[in-house]
Amino acid sequence: MTVFDIVRYMPNQTQQFDRIFHALADPTRRSVVERLSVGPAPVSELAGRFNMALPSFTQHLGVLESCGLVRSKKSGRVRKYYLAPQPLKAAESWMVRQRAIWEKRLDQLDDYLQTLKEKQSD
Amino acid sequence: MTVFDIVRYMPNQTQQFDRIFHALADPTRRSVVERLSVGPAPVSELAGRFNMALPSFTQHLGVLESCGLVRSKKSGRVRKYYLAPQPLKAAESWMVRQRAIWEKRLDQLDDYLQTLKEKQSD
Repeated sequence: MTVFDIVRYMPNQTQQFDRIFHALADPTRRSVVERLSVGPAPVSELAGRFNMALPSFTQHLGVLESCGLVRSKKSGRVRKYYLAPQPLKAAESWMVRQRAIWEKRLDQLDDYLQTLKEKQSD
Repeated sequence: MTVFDIVRYMPNQTQQFDRIFHALADPTRRSVVERLSVGPAPVSELAGRFNMALPSFTQHLGVLESCGLVRSKKSGRVRKYYLAPQPLKAAESWMVRQRAIWEKRLDQLDDYLQTLKEKQSD
């Protein structure tokens, strides 16, 4: 069983990654994540940042909430949104892992070339 | 000028992020990135991993190539694909940054609560 097979056997995580990356593929949604990383905010403040009809903006919030990047809580009459960093961390780890494998391979290639060079100079 | 304004003034990077995250929002394309992180591969080997018509698979490769995550080079009759980790690193940095801001805020909140606690016990 290879790493690729393991990934294929994890349908839930696969779908979660689909949703997280899809959520981040939009500048408005990324801006919301950027804003919420400095602290929670009510929908009115978030919507005020964007020149956009409220229903469209609410849809963006829905996309962010359904993949778990953002959560909301009603307190009195105001619904506040806040960042839930776990999905961000999961997606980030996937990326870091791919780069690490790639960099390890480059290092191995480097070692191999070094060995060849040393053999030639023997 | 806030961080959010600066991000908005960088249309090229914004569009690049749109494309990178869109490219990664698909399990087939993520599998290609995973495979290429261990080394270059010809299209025939990549396509062989997926139960998919070649034109559909080629479209996926096109999406990965157009956002810069993957590059290709023809050598003789074979076109080989390889990973270009720079876009991965850029998207990863964006995520790390958001988490770092979020974690710093939590630390500050923690310090503040600690100060309150100490004041109470004085």
